[in-house]
Amino acid sequence: LNWQINEKSITAPCGYQAAAVSAGIKKQDGRLDLGLIYSEVPAIAAAQFTTNKVKAAPVLLDQEHLNRSRQECRAIFVNSGNANACTGEQGMKDSRRMALLASRILDIQPEQVLVSSTGVIGVFLPVERMELKEAELKASLNQDGLDAVSRAIMTTDTRQKVCTAESLLDGIPVRICGMTKGAGMIHPRMATTLAFVLTDARLSKPLLKKALREACDKSYNRITVDGDTSTNDTLAVLANGASGAREISGEDSDYRHFVEGLTGVCSSLARQIVRDGEGASKFIEIVVNGAPRQEDATQIARSIANSPLVKTAMAGEDANWGRILCAAGYAGVDFDPNRVSIWIGGLEVCHCGTGVVFDETRAQKILAEHDIQIVLDIQSGSASSTMWTCDLTHEYVHINADYRT
Amino acid sequence: LNWQINEKSITAPCGYQAAAVSAGIKKQDGRLDLGLIYSEVPAIAAAQFTTNKVKAAPVLLDQEHLNRSRQECRAIFVNSGNANACTGEQGMKDSRRMALLASRILDIQPEQVLVSSTGVIGVFLPVERMELKEAELKASLNQDGLDAVSRAIMTTDTRQKVCTAESLLDGIPVRICGMTKGAGMIHPRMATTLAFVLTDARLSKPLLKKALREACDKSYNRITVDGDTSTNDTLAVLANGASGAREISGEDSDYRHFVEGLTGVCSSLARQIVRDGEGASKFIEIVVNGAPRQEDATQIARSIANSPLVKTAMAGEDANWGRILCAAGYAGVDFDPNRVSIWIGGLEVCHCGTGVVFDETRAQKILAEHDIQIVLDIQSGSASSTMWTCDLTHEYVHINADYRT
Repeated sequence: LNWQINEKSITAPCGYQAAAVSAGIKKQDGRLDLGLIYSEVPAIAAAQFTTNKVKAAPVLLDQEHLNRSRQECRAIFVNSGNANACTGEQGMKDSRRMALLASRILDIQPEQVLVSSTGVIGVFLPVERMELKEAELKASLNQDGLDAVSRAIMTTDTRQKVCTAESLLDGIPVRICGMTKGAGMIHPRMATTLAFVLTDARLSKPLLKKALREACDKSYNRITVDGDTSTNDTLAVLANGASGAREISGEDSDYRHFVEGLTGVCSSLARQIVRDGEGASKFIEIVVNGAPRQEDATQIARSIANSPLVKTAMAGEDANWGRILCAAGYAGVDFDPNRVSIWIGGLEVCHCGTGVVFDETRAQKILAEHDIQIVLDIQSGSASSTMWTCDLTHEYVHINADYRT
Repeated sequence: LNWQINEKSITAPCGYQAAAVSAGIKKQDGRLDLGLIYSEVPAIAAAQFTTNKVKAAPVLLDQEHLNRSRQECRAIFVNSGNANACTGEQGMKDSRRMALLASRILDIQPEQVLVSSTGVIGVFLPVERMELKEAELKASLNQDGLDAVSRAIMTTDTRQKVCTAESLLDGIPVRICGMTKGAGMIHPRMATTLAFVLTDARLSKPLLKKALREACDKSYNRITVDGDTSTNDTLAVLANGASGAREISGEDSDYRHFVEGLTGVCSSLARQIVRDGEGASKFIEIVVNGAPRQEDATQIARSIANSPLVKTAMAGEDANWGRILCAAGYAGVDFDPNRVSIWIGGLEVCHCGTGVVFDETRAQKILAEHDIQIVLDIQSGSASSTMWTCDLTHEYVHINADYRT
């Protein structure tokens, strides 16, 4: 890899500042819940949003702002504790008011602000509490503020999720950093999380969009926690060119290099989400080999990753490969079950559709690990795909049965 | 309703006998695990099987037997404790040997036997233990044996599931009875359960098939426990004409009358499965009204019924209607979220896409009930659909984490 990737901390690329405060949106307990990210110079922005028909007000507003294509982006303003979803016209007004507040703090246009919200659905956003923090946010902006923002966006997350990648482009140091939140309601096809990625590389807007799609397809589109998709999912990337490296304007080696870094950051963030899946005790990688087409491999891997029966078996450390084959069987892909072989942590448990007598002691050791890899070979072609998921535990039920109250 | 329906007990229609024994397939603990159902006269058979690509040997064998269209059916032979799935060629041989055993006991052709298996996947079927029970099964056959068979097919079920419907056809008493098993791995689109329905009405084979499809669409295709589908699902119906009522040979009022009874039995059995859903503490009915087409209504209802976040909210007695709207939003159906209203147990919680201030005390009372009805009106047409599901509890995880071991 041509990028140095640090998954422990977030360091701002050139030209970015950030601040986070406690505005009492989560609860009145002093936890950070409002964050502002600012680019000192105009930045190109690209974003992927939830595919859910029910889109929260901030998503609708961001789509509006991004569609004004000549308008460059300067800021991301985000709160946790309230999703501003299912809030109708009032919700749209509140999101606009949030953008306006950020524009006043930073002396920019409201249309240059992307807003995001995450938390409880169907409750009006207490924007007035944010407005009380105008001076504090302005005073707190600094180059080291991203770490605080990454904590301010957490909801049921048990830990912050950040990543920083560094490399040389055109001989000049360039950085891509990112933060994300999400622990449940995670689903492939870009859904159900917030992620903000910042870079000081310079790209044309169409190339940034394309790079984001490529990176997303290998990261956020490969994870699932419970198969639900949310109303607020947003993955936004800003590129402000402040590194001074020359603009990437064609699909050349510099572009490939940038995509590699962006994919590295997004993939790290996505996997951090799965590792922190609600109630998760295990990180499970599902690899499907030997498919006729990549879509088929992905569909089979996704079906296994979403199966409650596979996920509970993993929680119970049970080598129940029948459930794995069974979940492959209802993926909607045509294949011959009698050609499928399955390995759990390198141990073959099913050969050509039939169980093999395997070493139960070794299987128990493999299943007791935190990281488990399941590999299927369906022997019908040469395409492969990988999905990441976690197990389904008592803790998941506990967290989600009592979320609103 | 023109049928008297009894959900507490199963009474054989004319011309049927049954027996159940303990063959030590489940465990060596004396529980019933092998059942035989016999029609004294040749019967017409129809069946719906799992749509899973991975089909167990008994399903493949039954499909073969049913495709020999001139061959009438005489028996159903079923075991629990072992699904004979993912067992390759040996599995097919074992299922054939099972059919052969039943044919010897009853002095009929092996092709006149439908076999079914349910239980653990990927382990060879101990047919030799069944063969030791040949004499005992033969000696035990009697008209009251169906109750024992309905207990012999149970796996994680906590109670037996039976139904008997009676009416007059052509002035002559006719009966339809049924038994079913299944508590997890229940999914719409005819999947993941065993169900055997017997009647002494007389129908042509094409009409019996059509009647079964109609009944199934309003019963087994409307339930979901965890969205997984199995390798062994079978819903088989036998009609032996032993009542003496005249044959139903056209889609006349007698046919409609029969379909009504068959639907009543299948619907009762399907709802009994949901009520006994693995770890379920609640029975949830989801009604979607005002859809452009019935498929749309069903797809939205199914999406809500399968959402882990909705199901855990119900377990936690939390009126989290945002999750309901959110699950509707990713159903893949085009609708305007701003026209959707939602009621929980008759209490409106969301009006035209936005939350309404509702009486929390009343909501708590509604959610504390065992039976909960969720109604959505999407105000985009006049089509409706209903799905039945249960909540997702700690107990579900517990049951499924330790099933194989």
